[in-house]
Amino acid sequence: MKVRVAVNGYGTIGKRVADAVAKQPDLELVGVTKTRPNFEALRAREKGFPLYLAGEGTPEAFATAGLSLAGTVHDLLSKVDVVVDASPDKVGRENRKLYEAAGVRAVFQGGEKADVAEASFSALANYSAGRGKRFLRVVSCNTTGLARAAHVLRSTWGVDHWEATLIRRGADPAESKKGPINGILPTFHLPSHHGPDVRTIFPDLSIATTAVVVPTTLMHVHVNHVRLKQAPRDAAEVVEAFRRSPRFLLFAPWEQVDGTPQVMEYARNRGAGFGDLMENVIWEDGVRLDGRDLYFFQAIHQESIVVPESVDAIRAMFDLAKDGPESIALTDRTLGLKGR
Amino acid sequence: MKVRVAVNGYGTIGKRVADAVAKQPDLELVGVTKTRPNFEALRAREKGFPLYLAGEGTPEAFATAGLSLAGTVHDLLSKVDVVVDASPDKVGRENRKLYEAAGVRAVFQGGEKADVAEASFSALANYSAGRGKRFLRVVSCNTTGLARAAHVLRSTWGVDHWEATLIRRGADPAESKKGPINGILPTFHLPSHHGPDVRTIFPDLSIATTAVVVPTTLMHVHVNHVRLKQAPRDAAEVVEAFRRSPRFLLFAPWEQVDGTPQVMEYARNRGAGFGDLMENVIWEDGVRLDGRDLYFFQAIHQESIVVPESVDAIRAMFDLAKDGPESIALTDRTLGLKGR
Amino acid sequence: MKVRVAVNGYGTIGKRVADAVAKQPDLELVGVTKTRPNFEALRAREKGFPLYLAGEGTPEAFATAGLSLAGTVHDLLSKVDVVVDASPDKVGRENRKLYEAAGVRAVFQGGEKADVAEASFSALANYSAGRGKRFLRVVSCNTTGLARAAHVLRSTWGVDHWEATLIRRGADPAESKKGPINGILPTFHLPSHHGPDVRTIFPDLSIATTAVVVPTTLMHVHVNHVRLKQAPRDAAEVVEAFRRSPRFLLFAPWEQVDGTPQVMEYARNRGAGFGDLMENVIWEDGVRLDGRDLYFFQAIHQESIVVPESVDAIRAMFDLAKDGPESIALTDRTLGLKGR
Amino acid sequence: MKVRVAVNGYGTIGKRVADAVAKQPDLELVGVTKTRPNFEALRAREKGFPLYLAGEGTPEAFATAGLSLAGTVHDLLSKVDVVVDASPDKVGRENRKLYEAAGVRAVFQGGEKADVAEASFSALANYSAGRGKRFLRVVSCNTTGLARAAHVLRSTWGVDHWEATLIRRGADPAESKKGPINGILPTFHLPSHHGPDVRTIFPDLSIATTAVVVPTTLMHVHVNHVRLKQAPRDAAEVVEAFRRSPRFLLFAPWEQVDGTPQVMEYARNRGAGFGDLMENVIWEDGVRLDGRDLYFFQAIHQESIVVPESVDAIRAMFDLAKDGPESIALTDRTLGLKGR
Repeated sequence: MKVRVAVNGYGTIGKRVADAVAKQPDLELVGVTKTRPNFEALRAREKGFPLYLAGEGTPEAFATAGLSLAGTVHDLLSKVDVVVDASPDKVGRENRKLYEAAGVRAVFQGGEKADVAEASFSALANYSAGRGKRFLRVVSCNTTGLARAAHVLRSTWGVDHWEATLIRRGADPAESKKGPINGILPTFHLPSHHGPDVRTIFPDLSIATTAVVVPTTLMHVHVNHVRLKQAPRDAAEVVEAFRRSPRFLLFAPWEQVDGTPQVMEYARNRGAGFGDLMENVIWEDGVRLDGRDLYFFQAIHQESIVVPESVDAIRAMFDLAKDGPESIALTDRTLGLKGR
Repeated sequence: MKVRVAVNGYGTIGKRVADAVAKQPDLELVGVTKTRPNFEALRAREKGFPLYLAGEGTPEAFATAGLSLAGTVHDLLSKVDVVVDASPDKVGRENRKLYEAAGVRAVFQGGEKADVAEASFSALANYSAGRGKRFLRVVSCNTTGLARAAHVLRSTWGVDHWEATLIRRGADPAESKKGPINGILPTFHLPSHHGPDVRTIFPDLSIATTAVVVPTTLMHVHVNHVRLKQAPRDAAEVVEAFRRSPRFLLFAPWEQVDGTPQVMEYARNRGAGFGDLMENVIWEDGVRLDGRDLYFFQAIHQESIVVPESVDAIRAMFDLAKDGPESIALTDRTLGLKGR
Repeated sequence: MKVRVAVNGYGTIGKRVADAVAKQPDLELVGVTKTRPNFEALRAREKGFPLYLAGEGTPEAFATAGLSLAGTVHDLLSKVDVVVDASPDKVGRENRKLYEAAGVRAVFQGGEKADVAEASFSALANYSAGRGKRFLRVVSCNTTGLARAAHVLRSTWGVDHWEATLIRRGADPAESKKGPINGILPTFHLPSHHGPDVRTIFPDLSIATTAVVVPTTLMHVHVNHVRLKQAPRDAAEVVEAFRRSPRFLLFAPWEQVDGTPQVMEYARNRGAGFGDLMENVIWEDGVRLDGRDLYFFQAIHQESIVVPESVDAIRAMFDLAKDGPESIALTDRTLGLKGR
Repeated sequence: MKVRVAVNGYGTIGKRVADAVAKQPDLELVGVTKTRPNFEALRAREKGFPLYLAGEGTPEAFATAGLSLAGTVHDLLSKVDVVVDASPDKVGRENRKLYEAAGVRAVFQGGEKADVAEASFSALANYSAGRGKRFLRVVSCNTTGLARAAHVLRSTWGVDHWEATLIRRGADPAESKKGPINGILPTFHLPSHHGPDVRTIFPDLSIATTAVVVPTTLMHVHVNHVRLKQAPRDAAEVVEAFRRSPRFLLFAPWEQVDGTPQVMEYARNRGAGFGDLMENVIWEDGVRLDGRDLYFFQAIHQESIVVPESVDAIRAMFDLAKDGPESIALTDRTLGLKGR
């Protein structure tokens, strides 16, 4: 008996989660919602995903576009066990009332504050925290990237203190109204909110983050300095630890991957859906060890990195796997991760 | 008996042509060449494409990268009937000597001047011009886009005169060393070379083009003003003519495709290899008719638009199809074009 | 007796007009308004411009910032003969009621529709249309650039028909929230509104314009094709006509001004206020003649090009000069235009 | 008797240093050099700076452009006491041979390695190190910014350890051939060379720097985490220390300076030559203190920040001031720094 899943909000995250859910042997994608017709709604229909009306939308707009609706979000909620909320930031909290009324469980995204759910979730780090939960929150793209890396380093050498500067993309590729076109915008909230967000996963982690926004659409880059509790033998040992971990992808110097433009070109070459890259990207050349002090860059594909965690979150809530590694292995196999 | 094909230069165009050739029932991809190892060379091996050494490259560099070589470009040429030259601009002309020495036919790209080959080629417009040729040149991305549109308009209403302003992307997505970062660069050669290049396909076409370069990586946009010989009934009739033609993709206003960012997002959603879009893109809202004066925008994905024409070029040279429409239909079916 | 001038809205246009007014021997800058304190308001105070409160702003906000206010916009209007409205688009129309109530004349900007005023104005083209007017509208930056060029070409050879493609900057340098970051956005209103706007100056001009928006902050570029009534002798004659006209700046090939980045670098070198460039920029290399068909590029500094016309508009309204050329000469001398 | 100064290389840095030298009461600008004519060479002539031929250039090219030459670089060197070398990176080292042959002293820029000169120089930090030197090197823009801030913090509370992430602009505004257009490029040399370069000024400073390059032309931004030796009372005390120091400019929250676009807009408003900003920019909102741990952002205008230090370097070499503060005060007064 598959767990029946709805995706509420078929946008940047929702369309990716829908595809991922549809590929899972133990999940069934029942439908997706959309407020207004657009090329993405058309694509959902082309893929055979039943489309339901959400928010302020009107059936007339969809009829004019020739897109058939299977009902409203209320109809959809009556048919599922769990909903993945992929609505815009802050709307998820409003939607929670709908989910409570419909008696369905929900996975929220990191654009919502932590208290929208019973727990925050990152599969490598705290899979078991999701077990049996009714409301679970997958942390944001940047937090997911940090939590994955923290998991690897903590479980191998321990982490004394972590400092990260987040170089954030200004807009997603199709968000053409957002800037900046030319300039760097510091985030004056110092340290940034990302550190506290990582502590929703690792409450005892000493971490301070700062952030700037820059004119690019492709990926975030994290510049990390971690003081480990124990010293690795050398940088190569750290590289190997990342390489062995699920959800990390490493580039060797000879691959000539100079930065995020080439990383995303690699992703297009690999050919996953949307040209996505759901792993943390580490450059071997960009890892340096000085005693217990580890410096490394990582790149994070903001559009897709939380997709596998969203799948694992459902599996944890419904106890569909014996543990995190089993869920992660299944998710990664179905999504084609680490296909090098 | 399949025609045996080599791709010389596994870069932006070459990797796409290689994939396309591998999907054709009447062609066999024998191997691809690369000068230096990088993530693209690795991808070629992962796809099972035999890799041959070209140019100034050394076997040692590939050995260090763990990439096995099947030989040199000379070895490859000895095994094929035709080579698609996808080397950098101007290098193709040098390579022609190799091809002549090896006794193989060759398809060149539009980065070479017209006299590198016996004829210039654009499948919709002059398929038969390619028949039996030993050296054929597929025109450049911008010229291909103009030639396709010219074919539709000429064959329906006739073209009195064409004016096009080409808004060109500054660099491809992975060319991170090229600018401009902020600014507009006019092309002072007036009219630009694109008009004469279109006349290698339609010698009698009256066309004047101008060009500017802008800081984007996604697509070129053409702003066209065409005085037709006969007046269409209305803009909708022109829209329909484009819609009926192979290699054109149209967006309706309700799809909310505001510009090239959303066009390429559509392409990622559709999921062709590399997130490519090999059709001319026309916005229904961006077509306006005033008597015989037609205005329309079209967007051109510079990385991939010449790929189907490269396949058709081989088919024309070896007379593998009874006519252009048959070749185009086969190419488009195998490449998933017009899959709306 | 100087004409007393207020500037309502000390932003991108307003701060430039204020500086320009302050340099005129026959005008007196009485004060400027601002809704909220910011670094620009501070700069107004540093320059000694009395600051008045406008719009939704509160005196408390200015007090907290340590910026002294001389009163409200109503106080300011009671002290002046004319106000230059430099408020955001559409707000000018609302403000007109204030100006009527205060019995002051007003110069509006091109972000307002033509019917906000009794006439539209462009100094080279129709100075006398401004004479004695109570409400006058200086046309927008793009329209001003087109009207200036139309004036030169019409008065020398006559214009049969004009086609222009406008490559528009996405945002001004300090508008960091606006995009696009990466992509080209066509303006689907075809032809664009700029053509009709030029006809508010030259009602009989046959002109069709199209526009796209691109990710740059520096300047607009116009790609023009003009069919003249009479054929100039050669392109050099056209270049000379532009060179002789006020408010045109020409670059020779040896100056190595490849595009708008170098044009604005030239402007910084010249050292006018804000690094502005109030002339139409023409590249000699970018002018080509084919019989009566003239092709040329021009670059337009969107932030400053309307400033001299705003000064001339006041002079026309109050009949302070005997004709357009006298006003233009005075404006240009005080602003340092054509200082090559 | 003024010290006679030449500027070798009238480009981005050279043209600014020339202007600055010309404003000093104790220095005389004898001439500047240029390899090829362009709009900057013309500007030098318009300013009355004698122009000398350097490098591979030919007199014919200047003659064609109508630009008179006063001789060659050799002629110029025979007339001066000191040359400021503002040639491209690595060329300065070659030029040193010329300077030795001519028996003139030289100030090199930070694009040269430290051993090009007898000492590296940053006026606030080590003015006296420049005294009497024959060859002195002003450190690069990023290093100058770090050294200034280090001077303030070291002299007040002491610095235990410094970590900085440098978000670097991809190209200067007029460098239209350089990218990236869209993407983030990490500098894999870890830590980056900037830390060791700061130690040419403060040999005992514990500092580690990392760097990324982003698609902007305006400024660099440094994200700093400094562990001080003694704890300041609060962040406000640190803000005040920066405010009191020469060559620092602070922005208050109410000024609405969100990032580098607004900082450079402020600079254009202030109206120094080229719209430059020669101070370190600190946002009050972007300073946070946690015990001895200080976090702060600073923005660095790469084109101009080294200009005042270049003037001070000459003064130190020729012992024209009694100490650093006297030279700095004179430089800053003549250049209009801290003119708030």
